[in-house]
Amino acid sequence: MKNQQVLLAARPRGPVETSHFRFAESEIPRADEGEFVVRAHYLSLDPYMRGRMDDAKSYAKKAEVGEVMVGTAVGEVIESRHAKFKVGDFVETRTGWQLYGKSDGGGVRKIDPAYVPLSAYLGVVGMPGVTAWIGLNEHGRPKAGETVVVSAASGAVGGVVGQLAKLHGCRAVGIAGGKAKCDYVVNELEFDACIDYKAGKLDAELAAACPQGVDVYFDNVGGPILDAVLAQMNAFSRIALCGQISGYNNPDALTVHNFRSFLVNRIQLRGFICSDHMDLWRPALKELGTLVHEGRLKYRESIVQGLENAPAAFIGLLNGQNFGKQLVKLI
Amino acid sequence: MKNQQVLLAARPRGPVETSHFRFAESEIPRADEGEFVVRAHYLSLDPYMRGRMDDAKSYAKKAEVGEVMVGTAVGEVIESRHAKFKVGDFVETRTGWQLYGKSDGGGVRKIDPAYVPLSAYLGVVGMPGVTAWIGLNEHGRPKAGETVVVSAASGAVGGVVGQLAKLHGCRAVGIAGGKAKCDYVVNELEFDACIDYKAGKLDAELAAACPQGVDVYFDNVGGPILDAVLAQMNAFSRIALCGQISGYNNPDALTVHNFRSFLVNRIQLRGFICSDHMDLWRPALKELGTLVHEGRLKYRESIVQGLENAPAAFIGLLNGQNFGKQLVKLI
Repeated sequence: MKNQQVLLAARPRGPVETSHFRFAESEIPRADEGEFVVRAHYLSLDPYMRGRMDDAKSYAKKAEVGEVMVGTAVGEVIESRHAKFKVGDFVETRTGWQLYGKSDGGGVRKIDPAYVPLSAYLGVVGMPGVTAWIGLNEHGRPKAGETVVVSAASGAVGGVVGQLAKLHGCRAVGIAGGKAKCDYVVNELEFDACIDYKAGKLDAELAAACPQGVDVYFDNVGGPILDAVLAQMNAFSRIALCGQISGYNNPDALTVHNFRSFLVNRIQLRGFICSDHMDLWRPALKELGTLVHEGRLKYRESIVQGLENAPAAFIGLLNGQNFGKQLVKLI
Repeated sequence: MKNQQVLLAARPRGPVETSHFRFAESEIPRADEGEFVVRAHYLSLDPYMRGRMDDAKSYAKKAEVGEVMVGTAVGEVIESRHAKFKVGDFVETRTGWQLYGKSDGGGVRKIDPAYVPLSAYLGVVGMPGVTAWIGLNEHGRPKAGETVVVSAASGAVGGVVGQLAKLHGCRAVGIAGGKAKCDYVVNELEFDACIDYKAGKLDAELAAACPQGVDVYFDNVGGPILDAVLAQMNAFSRIALCGQISGYNNPDALTVHNFRSFLVNRIQLRGFICSDHMDLWRPALKELGTLVHEGRLKYRESIVQGLENAPAAFIGLLNGQNFGKQLVKLI
């Protein structure tokens, strides 16, 4: 038995290709005193990983060429010399794109697959869910009756944003790519409306879907979609700026033309990442876990089988080919 | 004796020209019951007036073609049938671009020219000063030791921003157009540095003037200068978006390219106008008046004589030809 790993082979200039990754085998790690070893069951693929592949200054440490790609997994402790983690515990850890990893327990969360499904701890009851919760509640601050718009609405973050907005008594309007995703957002997640930005009538459809204007925009994509929403923002509206997936391959695509709206409408914009607010993770995860456990918060997963398919699945995610939370099943 | 007025003759498409204004004479108004008549001593010219000339949706009621141009003046009550205002009182009122106006007292502030000079109530102890105070304290929230950058630094708002920042124990860096303005900002207002954006080395000089990065940017101009400052912003920095003078004639000039910085640095941006915060006017004016009275807050005025020169002075203001608070002396 060997460990299998995906390494960052080269930093992309433009779109990510499978050649930017390299497979490797290594020995399964052994726990030293104060450590434990995890066998990963699911690896999470997330848009933020694209930023880690670049050399540019960003909000987190970049991935290093020749090293295991950064990432979070859920799995089971198979060996332990750590006082607080025992064999058979399920955990969420940042062991990266590999089958086995070891940890000293820093940043590791114990999870209970009997309460919600194991994979959900990487999505709706994990980082993406917390990101939605924090961005909406801390920065969006929606009041009942207001209109909340979210882009990438069928994704792991966006789907939670709209459902939480509905629980706040708001009108929830999604933006997603393609009819299937929009149908899912309206029919399954029960948003009030969802606009297919690929249909080419974003401005008109957004105006029609938001007859009272937009009070909160949760932005996962940036660029032209942000510009379109800016044209519908109300006075004293808020933008929670969570992601800029439209500019990962080309920062010029993030250009905002309608900047006048920020002053005319006295908009408050806040860029954030979920790790800025570690104090909020506990209440967020508690609420999200309860909602999932009770069946009041829905989610969808795109699961590929096998670590060897992780690079292609990640490239698909960056191109919007996933449908819901993208996972790699490793066991 | 007649009243003299400047009317809005036509809405500009592009740069404002004197042909967009028209002079008129009328009878000096008489006070009805509950009203009083003011003879204006100084008329204030402010960049916001450019927005009022447009037909576009904005944060305030637009000026109407054929009506007296909107604006604020300080002057003396010369006739009164109002219980709270008597002949000889000095007031700040929104009587517009004319020599005489009448009021029912709504929004009128009594002022004391023995405490600070009469004209200062239109600038540093008036709307521009309050704008600086609110934007810096409410939205910039500088802490001692931080770096505060302000554009249009020699102007009525910018000059106050930097001086208040110094009083907060911050490093104050101005951006202004031309050596004379920059020299004034550093030598008279005692900013730590001031960059001449017309010198063509904005990026490099901004980086050099802000060795610890930028924590607060008070933006009066928008456009390329905002882009340049975005490249220097620190994590968790704040932008108080107060004006967009660079885009008044051409909204395309407000395009922001470096939007990535908002997410990478988790920047908080807030568009605001001073009338959003009426509760803060009293404490702001009290502090500003005290600082001017005690000689701890400096200001500069550009004064033209005569209402007939108001249109040209206003056009000069939009082109950055004023140097400090632009006023028209009417008496």
